[in-house]
Amino acid sequence: MSLSPFDNALLRDFLGDAEVEAALCAEADIRAMLAFEAALARAEAIHGLIPAEAAETIATVCVQFQPDVAALARGVASDGVVVPALVRALRAAVGPEAAPHVHRGATSQDVIDTSLMLRLKPLAARFCTRLGAILARLAALDAAFGERALMGHTRMQAALPITVSDRLRSWSGPLAPLMLRLDRLSFPVQFGGAVGTLEGLEGKGAQVRAALAAELDLEDTPQWHSTRTVITDLGHLLALITGGLGKMGQDIALMAQAGDDITLSGGGGSSAMPHKQNPVAAETLVALARFNAVQASALQQAMVHEQERSGAAWTLEWLTLPHMLAATGAALRHAEALTLSILRLGGADDTRPG
Amino acid sequence: MSLSPFDNALLRDFLGDAEVEAALCAEADIRAMLAFEAALARAEAIHGLIPAEAAETIATVCVQFQPDVAALARGVASDGVVVPALVRALRAAVGPEAAPHVHRGATSQDVIDTSLMLRLKPLAARFCTRLGAILARLAALDAAFGERALMGHTRMQAALPITVSDRLRSWSGPLAPLMLRLDRLSFPVQFGGAVGTLEGLEGKGAQVRAALAAELDLEDTPQWHSTRTVITDLGHLLALITGGLGKMGQDIALMAQAGDDITLSGGGGSSAMPHKQNPVAAETLVALARFNAVQASALQQAMVHEQERSGAAWTLEWLTLPHMLAATGAALRHAEALTLSILRLGGADDTRPG
Amino acid sequence: MSLSPFDNALLRDFLGDAEVEAALCAEADIRAMLAFEAALARAEAIHGLIPAEAAETIATVCVQFQPDVAALARGVASDGVVVPALVRALRAAVGPEAAPHVHRGATSQDVIDTSLMLRLKPLAARFCTRLGAILARLAALDAAFGERALMGHTRMQAALPITVSDRLRSWSGPLAPLMLRLDRLSFPVQFGGAVGTLEGLEGKGAQVRAALAAELDLEDTPQWHSTRTVITDLGHLLALITGGLGKMGQDIALMAQAGDDITLSGGGGSSAMPHKQNPVAAETLVALARFNAVQASALQQAMVHEQERSGAAWTLEWLTLPHMLAATGAALRHAEALTLSILRLGGADDTRPG
Amino acid sequence: MSLSPFDNALLRDFLGDAEVEAALCAEADIRAMLAFEAALARAEAIHGLIPAEAAETIATVCVQFQPDVAALARGVASDGVVVPALVRALRAAVGPEAAPHVHRGATSQDVIDTSLMLRLKPLAARFCTRLGAILARLAALDAAFGERALMGHTRMQAALPITVSDRLRSWSGPLAPLMLRLDRLSFPVQFGGAVGTLEGLEGKGAQVRAALAAELDLEDTPQWHSTRTVITDLGHLLALITGGLGKMGQDIALMAQAGDDITLSGGGGSSAMPHKQNPVAAETLVALARFNAVQASALQQAMVHEQERSGAAWTLEWLTLPHMLAATGAALRHAEALTLSILRLGGADDTRPG
Repeated sequence: MSLSPFDNALLRDFLGDAEVEAALCAEADIRAMLAFEAALARAEAIHGLIPAEAAETIATVCVQFQPDVAALARGVASDGVVVPALVRALRAAVGPEAAPHVHRGATSQDVIDTSLMLRLKPLAARFCTRLGAILARLAALDAAFGERALMGHTRMQAALPITVSDRLRSWSGPLAPLMLRLDRLSFPVQFGGAVGTLEGLEGKGAQVRAALAAELDLEDTPQWHSTRTVITDLGHLLALITGGLGKMGQDIALMAQAGDDITLSGGGGSSAMPHKQNPVAAETLVALARFNAVQASALQQAMVHEQERSGAAWTLEWLTLPHMLAATGAALRHAEALTLSILRLGGADDTRPG
Repeated sequence: MSLSPFDNALLRDFLGDAEVEAALCAEADIRAMLAFEAALARAEAIHGLIPAEAAETIATVCVQFQPDVAALARGVASDGVVVPALVRALRAAVGPEAAPHVHRGATSQDVIDTSLMLRLKPLAARFCTRLGAILARLAALDAAFGERALMGHTRMQAALPITVSDRLRSWSGPLAPLMLRLDRLSFPVQFGGAVGTLEGLEGKGAQVRAALAAELDLEDTPQWHSTRTVITDLGHLLALITGGLGKMGQDIALMAQAGDDITLSGGGGSSAMPHKQNPVAAETLVALARFNAVQASALQQAMVHEQERSGAAWTLEWLTLPHMLAATGAALRHAEALTLSILRLGGADDTRPG
Repeated sequence: MSLSPFDNALLRDFLGDAEVEAALCAEADIRAMLAFEAALARAEAIHGLIPAEAAETIATVCVQFQPDVAALARGVASDGVVVPALVRALRAAVGPEAAPHVHRGATSQDVIDTSLMLRLKPLAARFCTRLGAILARLAALDAAFGERALMGHTRMQAALPITVSDRLRSWSGPLAPLMLRLDRLSFPVQFGGAVGTLEGLEGKGAQVRAALAAELDLEDTPQWHSTRTVITDLGHLLALITGGLGKMGQDIALMAQAGDDITLSGGGGSSAMPHKQNPVAAETLVALARFNAVQASALQQAMVHEQERSGAAWTLEWLTLPHMLAATGAALRHAEALTLSILRLGGADDTRPG
Repeated sequence: MSLSPFDNALLRDFLGDAEVEAALCAEADIRAMLAFEAALARAEAIHGLIPAEAAETIATVCVQFQPDVAALARGVASDGVVVPALVRALRAAVGPEAAPHVHRGATSQDVIDTSLMLRLKPLAARFCTRLGAILARLAALDAAFGERALMGHTRMQAALPITVSDRLRSWSGPLAPLMLRLDRLSFPVQFGGAVGTLEGLEGKGAQVRAALAAELDLEDTPQWHSTRTVITDLGHLLALITGGLGKMGQDIALMAQAGDDITLSGGGGSSAMPHKQNPVAAETLVALARFNAVQASALQQAMVHEQERSGAAWTLEWLTLPHMLAATGAALRHAEALTLSILRLGGADDTRPG
């Protein structure tokens, strides 16, 4: 059972995205959190803060440990974060010798934010690849139909003739630079301890953090407990992607209504009018764009992150970012399918408008 | 596997709500859509549009029919709506005699919007009851501590002494009228056919709609395919509920920080600071309030619902309303638990400030 | 000089609204605040809290007093509210006898919120009248063209024929009930004193408030310093109005693009293409709808109004509501002009589609 | 008269910003639009598209031409854009010889978007400088009080001691990188002609655009009529600035409430409680942050920019961006004043917490 349109058994194939789900599901989070604890133990052993044997034990256990998810969920319901329950379970699993060395100097936010970064990094790479496939398809359409004529429209009125190339450039224009931006995204490790000062690490906090980042292949930066730009920037970028795809979807829906400038294969069926071919993917791109445009506001609100750690602002991120990622994944999927379904663009003759 | 924080196996007990999930899961949707098809068949039989035997067959099958959910999901992925696939499956299930009489004169939106109303109606009643329990708890706190003194704060500064009663009234004030508003919500049947004109019902469209509404115990109103006020109003009301609860949560978090004016039992644990008792529920109320405040904007955007039916605007509602309902359910749950956890309000002496 | 598109000398005739400006300008605010102080003095004199002569003096001065606006503005910049500076100026103007009796028991929020209610009440009535004119124009279009055929469109695709009447009902449908809702809006007096408890009025707070409400012809309700539903509800209603008008605007823009179903007089000119007639008003309705849909979120955020008075949440209302009112006024203006510019709806023949 | 809180005679000194107003007022827009027309004429003369004498005449007239603002405003009300009226007026002013050479190959959006870029460029530089002053003040506070102890708070609860330096880093942390981002903002010329294809420039469109960009000291990029990332990115950056300042404001308001960790000079007065010193600037920073967080959503919505030019999406930008700039200007002003008003941070002793 699930309630979100991204997870719901009827809607998930339409509005969800399998790769986002694989990155954001509980199991992936647990594995990433345990990877953090393993890497932290190793980093602290390197710098002599915990015994090497304890680190080895912790790291080994973390690879295969399968905590009781229901017990963790009860912990979240009580603590607002999963980490206290997870650390208790992990300490029990590593045995009494290693137990005191688990999670040394870390706090819940270190584990949870770093787990998110570990999972976002490959997901952003996938989004980049998928966006690249769409842009490649647009380039192929340009090669096939680019010189054909199309009526340009401004302010919802026929204006002057343009070419299919011109229109395709208006679709790739907002999207192409976003590949580079996805590629350049920074995924920093989070490590600050209880109040962000790395207390209790014998003055070696920065070295441990650097080693931790290296272990996890994340960027080494000072803790960002209450500096949430990395999250807000990501949300902005996701909204730009869906916004750009939404522009293309809106255009295609308008072209499909006018009927002369595009031929699409497939399209959605109607329960009342079997003759119709609805441009469902095109409309869905608009819906997903408007959805993410709204959500971006929540991440901006979460910038007002009071003191050393705001439970309210942080939880607001949790409530928002997964849906934005899912909407982006779904939009990339619909956009790729939609561009592949284009059989023809522009008028029948293939000459440039005179 | 699921990605939404409302469904995720780690977070659902914290941020989700079991009653909302029961109302919004795929199985509940399928049962409600079949209830629509059954009631429609009966209503059309009453008015002589389909044979009584066919209606009886359809209604009987609808009660127990278990369609293949994966096949329905494939239908949604292709059509953007589940109804074509569901109607195909139902027609197969009722046999060749009754099959042509299934779904007569209806369109996808009739089924889906009415299914939503059928499920929202009891859910709103439950929200009303749960809000009532919170208000009752606030009244009990007033009876116990109302006359005690509390420092009133304006603009984040100590101002003049007030009583606990005064503060409690500022919490119940935004909430109490919302019970009445929940109770008075209207849940209209949706029935308009392909383009909202009830074509193909031999001029008996309005009578069939009235009979359908009566069968389903919903309000009989003209179709609202592109008039989405009922959804927007509901979203507004949900945001008012979480907004009011968020005000209470913010106040309690501030009181818990100052430390003198409230004693709470429980509270969330910290992985780094075992001594802390975090007012997790209070902060979560603020997060859920800000979340719904953002989402309400999406439903307002969906008012721009072009022509006879906008796939884009309608899908935007689907992307938004379930999360708002879940956030509201979670907020009601946290608020009830939080008010029950209040052991003391106001100073030690129980006299009114002189 | 002004920066807002609603005030800017180039844009105000396009995006602003003269009636909203008259209600919200500084001069109107000052007059309404002075009306509050006059009515308060009278109400307190009635209940023996201040001398009748003092009340008479205060009331008389308030009618004609022209405070130094620049000095008031400096007061706002320092205090975040205008009232301390206004009360100082008024006390100086009424002379030493009456001065101590000015503003007795009141606080800034009492003056400012009540001033807003005093100005919103007639403005809402004007919006109601203006919406009525649009609905009357839609009825006239129905009488003239209602039986003509029009192609119904669902999901941006031609579906089945409908009549012009059907389409006009989809425009009036979201709007007509809003007239009633505008008419039934409640405009409560705000009177609570420093922390909402009406301290210092010798136990006669409720009577004074009732007399004050009667003087000002506002509803008598307990103070709503931190219970902001009245503002949030108003914002929601404004967004519903612009949302409904935006749906009509989007439809007309789509009809104007297709070209066969509507003839509009006028339309905007282009600097590059003199032949074009842009459906500027129709597009502007969409823009204003999306603008208000966004703003409504800010008022929902302001529901998290901490303690007895939140400067942050209250100021957020000030930043939002005026623009929403202006956008609504502008949308009503554009919608009236747009519906008046419709010369023809539907096809040439005037028979119902067979 | 004006209605916006950014322009209103009572509120402008509190919520507006003089530098933003100077950049966004009608007069500045007119001057920048005329600068565009002058530069375009020169660029086209360089490339032999119009006579050099005509270009000289146009450029000379543009420097001093004072068009009738009321007539331009009437043009906007009719056309939705000012440019047709402005070009008519300019053609009349340059005389019949040069008139046909005014605005050659350009469209309204070229003039309006480029005018905006011309004015945003120095404004962004000013914001950068002003942000730098705030960061310098935070550095000075660090030098004075950095080693003092402060109680760190997480989840609205006292956690562990930190230093004033730690807290100051949480304020400068979100802000410091934004100076660089302001400094690196790109301000592209807009030049595409009627439908973005630079028709009618004898194949020299790109050269003219490059010369135009050079004349105006803007970046030379292909037209971005429907690719609005430059606007959306700017809005995001503005929301990051106000969000970061809002975090500082929220922290200072909380410190001022607790009372021990900060001493502020000044503060706002109360009409009811003369003893109070309200942290008005701190609260205002929170309000402005939440305001911009909401507005950013509107610019994201405007990414769905249909076809070659969307009146609806473009107008939505006009309705949004000026207010975001004003809110940012006001926030920078309040933040600088607020940080200057800090007389003390941290406890009395100046030793690091042991």
